[in-house]
Amino acid sequence: MSTPPLFAVILAGGSGTRFWPASTRELPKQFLKLAGKRTLLAETHARIASLIPLERTLVVTAAAYAGLVQKTLKRLPPGNILAEPCARNTAAAVAWAALEIEAREPGAAHVVLPSDHVIHPAPRLRDALRAACDEACASGALVTFGVRPSYPATGYGYIEIGSALGEHQKLAIHAVQRFVEKPDRARAESFLASGRFLWNSGMFAWTTSSILSALREFAPAVHGPLSLARASERASLYPGLPSISVDHAILEKARNVRVVPVDFTWSDVGSWSAIPEVTTPDAHGNSASGGTTVITEDARGCVVYGKLGELTALIGVENMVVVRAGKCVLVCPKDRAQDVKKIVTRLENEGPSFL
Amino acid sequence: MSTPPLFAVILAGGSGTRFWPASTRELPKQFLKLAGKRTLLAETHARIASLIPLERTLVVTAAAYAGLVQKTLKRLPPGNILAEPCARNTAAAVAWAALEIEAREPGAAHVVLPSDHVIHPAPRLRDALRAACDEACASGALVTFGVRPSYPATGYGYIEIGSALGEHQKLAIHAVQRFVEKPDRARAESFLASGRFLWNSGMFAWTTSSILSALREFAPAVHGPLSLARASERASLYPGLPSISVDHAILEKARNVRVVPVDFTWSDVGSWSAIPEVTTPDAHGNSASGGTTVITEDARGCVVYGKLGELTALIGVENMVVVRAGKCVLVCPKDRAQDVKKIVTRLENEGPSFL
Repeated sequence: MSTPPLFAVILAGGSGTRFWPASTRELPKQFLKLAGKRTLLAETHARIASLIPLERTLVVTAAAYAGLVQKTLKRLPPGNILAEPCARNTAAAVAWAALEIEAREPGAAHVVLPSDHVIHPAPRLRDALRAACDEACASGALVTFGVRPSYPATGYGYIEIGSALGEHQKLAIHAVQRFVEKPDRARAESFLASGRFLWNSGMFAWTTSSILSALREFAPAVHGPLSLARASERASLYPGLPSISVDHAILEKARNVRVVPVDFTWSDVGSWSAIPEVTTPDAHGNSASGGTTVITEDARGCVVYGKLGELTALIGVENMVVVRAGKCVLVCPKDRAQDVKKIVTRLENEGPSFL
Repeated sequence: MSTPPLFAVILAGGSGTRFWPASTRELPKQFLKLAGKRTLLAETHARIASLIPLERTLVVTAAAYAGLVQKTLKRLPPGNILAEPCARNTAAAVAWAALEIEAREPGAAHVVLPSDHVIHPAPRLRDALRAACDEACASGALVTFGVRPSYPATGYGYIEIGSALGEHQKLAIHAVQRFVEKPDRARAESFLASGRFLWNSGMFAWTTSSILSALREFAPAVHGPLSLARASERASLYPGLPSISVDHAILEKARNVRVVPVDFTWSDVGSWSAIPEVTTPDAHGNSASGGTTVITEDARGCVVYGKLGELTALIGVENMVVVRAGKCVLVCPKDRAQDVKKIVTRLENEGPSFL
């Protein structure tokens, strides 16, 4: 079988503020250097650059971030940025990108990648992408990537694997038994123990024709308007589209869904407390992000964020998050990192200049 | 009795780094806004401005800080800054200032005031200064100010009061029974319970002739060289002077020492953990210094320092010191604030650019 051209669709429209004060509406998480010297978006591209060139990479993002995307990926053709006028979740983004690819290269396959996750080592990701694309091209399946869990995470959705259906590139392909929403702790532990549940990584591989067929069948309110419009008019239709995720709209309904179990290190880096998962801590378990220098006396398990050329000094503290960004400093225990959103909500009323 | 002209000598040569990263060698504590909108030095002058004009105020400081002093006290005559080429403790500073005052205005009296303490309310300080000067002029005594202790402080020296010797301005004047070095906790508690021990505030009032006599008698190695030199040459003698405090050299030896018991609020602001003593905490006991905005969720007893226009967000932390200054952030529990010097010592070797 001949391999069709492979495209990448990078989803870079997120605007969350769980990484405030580093992330803001003007500079969301995918544009931060949370886990290395490059931004998460730059790392996302770098991991697949040897597999898929920028000419075949589309980035779907909010119109407000188009400039940041171009600045991050300088050689990305400007026409490869699909600038959404408003957020309509992933089904609309996936549909728009698929229609664009189908117009450029009928019969192609593509992978869909979030821009704000951390994965390593990159070669293992590329192996998995190749295997998934082979399966997608061979069977027309919609292929997901299931990460073998390393702890009983309650913050991720899970995929229960079904029967083995063969292999590509020495990686097994499985049917999907079911998708499961974020479990409570006890369920997460039973998932881990069973060996049959994988973290749903939010990445996909499929042929363009397969995903367009599925969108036509399961998300006609998204697919219909976009497919009927000219390419140049799709953005203007956005406000009228339903806001629905590709997982709910398609993956949980389609019959031809597969999963590639993978064992690379993966994190969606959901909050400051996830930084230790994606950096190399010092001998006392303190993790630095963003380039800051850290000096400690009797400090353990802390997460520090700051810029290159800045210094954070920690004395006698444990499991503390210390973030410096712009005009703001944040200090909170790791297990309160989710409460950052409370501060953000209050600042919307009390101090918008700090957002 | 006619009252002689009253001068002020402000000691502003301190170079400590207990308030790192806010205080540095280039900008020591007296030049920080630790307890209000003005620097500690500016507040020191403001408290006495209605009693002693800048024309009769001398500031003894390190040569490196002369510019900062002038910038802080813009209308201070430049000739009123005595710029020390090296630090030689307080006896040398007091001797130099006394000789300068004696040359300008024979027969004057003066008060000696540290530049980095916090005192309020100012009118009560001025009442005490007036009473002490009256006593100094009437009896020729060396007058100290003893602050009634509000808690069993182990960080201050104490003065045990002796017999009552009369009053001025409705304030009692007492003999000094003895000076006591910083006590341990048990002793500090017995001092507090006895009612006879006062904190040694490091402020003095005396006639210029009295302190010069005492220096001649008890600190001839300081007084001799300085008194024999021309005014313009005193700075050049500094390197050869002994480094000794006026307390040890004079107060603990002279026979004519008096104390005015005072009950204003006083703190030498010895470390970050003293900030709550000199600021007004919020409803949860969090104290802000330096002008920063603070937003808290479930935070108690914290000390925050940052500039006007900056924000510090605290979530779920207690009794924590959080300082942002220049390129640095410091986080440590209040009861570890003395360990800041360990960081400073390490940075001298590992990262001098952060000092």
